[in-house]
Amino acid sequence: MVKNNKKISAAVLIIGNEILSGRTQDQNLAYLANWLNNILGIKIHEVRIVPDIEKKIINNILALSKNHNYVLTTGGIGPTHDDITAKSISKAFKKKYTYNKEAFNILKKYYGNKNFNDPRKKMAKMPEGSKLIYNPSSAAPGFIIKNVICLPGVPSILKSMIHNLKKYLKRGEKIYSVSISVNTVESQIAKILAKTQTKYQKSIEIGSYPFFRLGKIGVSIVMRSENKKKLHYCHNEIVKILKKKKLKIVKIV
Amino acid sequence: MVKNNKKISAAVLIIGNEILSGRTQDQNLAYLANWLNNILGIKIHEVRIVPDIEKKIINNILALSKNHNYVLTTGGIGPTHDDITAKSISKAFKKKYTYNKEAFNILKKYYGNKNFNDPRKKMAKMPEGSKLIYNPSSAAPGFIIKNVICLPGVPSILKSMIHNLKKYLKRGEKIYSVSISVNTVESQIAKILAKTQTKYQKSIEIGSYPFFRLGKIGVSIVMRSENKKKLHYCHNEIVKILKKKKLKIVKIV
Repeated sequence: MVKNNKKISAAVLIIGNEILSGRTQDQNLAYLANWLNNILGIKIHEVRIVPDIEKKIINNILALSKNHNYVLTTGGIGPTHDDITAKSISKAFKKKYTYNKEAFNILKKYYGNKNFNDPRKKMAKMPEGSKLIYNPSSAAPGFIIKNVICLPGVPSILKSMIHNLKKYLKRGEKIYSVSISVNTVESQIAKILAKTQTKYQKSIEIGSYPFFRLGKIGVSIVMRSENKKKLHYCHNEIVKILKKKKLKIVKIV
Repeated sequence: MVKNNKKISAAVLIIGNEILSGRTQDQNLAYLANWLNNILGIKIHEVRIVPDIEKKIINNILALSKNHNYVLTTGGIGPTHDDITAKSISKAFKKKYTYNKEAFNILKKYYGNKNFNDPRKKMAKMPEGSKLIYNPSSAAPGFIIKNVICLPGVPSILKSMIHNLKKYLKRGEKIYSVSISVNTVESQIAKILAKTQTKYQKSIEIGSYPFFRLGKIGVSIVMRSENKKKLHYCHNEIVKILKKKKLKIVKIV
């Protein structure tokens, strides 16, 4: 349950056998996370990846939609037999799985009467009462029902639609992020980071990520918070300690 | 619950704020899925991505370990404050979170007495009774406790360790995969695929994935099964129908 109205919580449900089998590398999560964070101040708290199995989709939709402001799904809204997202979500919410008139007309116009066959018509079927997310690249719209937002799995199509989703979403507090990259190893700065994290326990999330670049090892320290002022203090404190320890800061973003 | 002993089911729990924030694109899932499928006949049925929060790790470990033969975790076993996987799993299974003697000695030898500081020592702490997964690239081992396998988040290190995991895992029936790429659109073949999927409902998983390559659109039809013979029949049936419909098959793997 989300208590603070300014903190908007999202979950992502990735639907597709191809992601679980390793055939396809998911590209949508990182894109959605950055877009939600940077444009809308919405934070993804949880992700699940499930196969094209109705019962699994239903159970996960019900669990996630209860615990988050929004659930974004990707995949399973195309014309073939393995595209079962819309039908599964209809069942989850006990809504009629039926043609959306507007979606039907959009697709009919796009394909023309002659080519508007049954599989294509299927893409206009969704839970009764859904609102559409328009698709400028291949017409078949996504949809929103309750707090669940259904998007396609093909990254280029998803990206083309995302801006049509913005108007439906509440904005959260902007999440700011600063990072410091330093030529050291994690164990050299672990204590500093732990101490600083304890100090800013409630307001800042500090992460530590080793890297290897241009033949040199280093660590990126990433700080994220809704509180810009505290983030600034925290950043300066860490920089000061690193300089005192004569560690080489290679990049400050 | 897994009923058929030959079907080995796995889940993956990806642990890390950096994946949820979109800072880092996960690369481990596709690698692990292919390795488990192709080398060991183990299928990933479910994936969850959670932040570096103890309670979330515990709840998900308990849920996933009950429902699958194996749970593989990635991330959170380094030396810093945000590396809490080993401690969380100890709590989940009510095991003591303590130094593993062998891991301690490996790390002591690797770093030398002088450089073996507390954060580095932390990497030898794990649930009591864990078995080690040796790490040929950076020494700090992964571990197995009950049916949970803990691996690092850095892809190059994970890859270097994976072969040391093999001996601990039961082999399932090999999962075979064939695919047909055809220059058409999904809606043109949706009925054929639906009919064929119904025929092979229990033995073959048929997926349909649109692509855009060298200026041409197409669909990859992917069939996966433990039954090589049926897969062969199914493949031939689809090819025959596609040829009859004069659709151009561009590649058969």
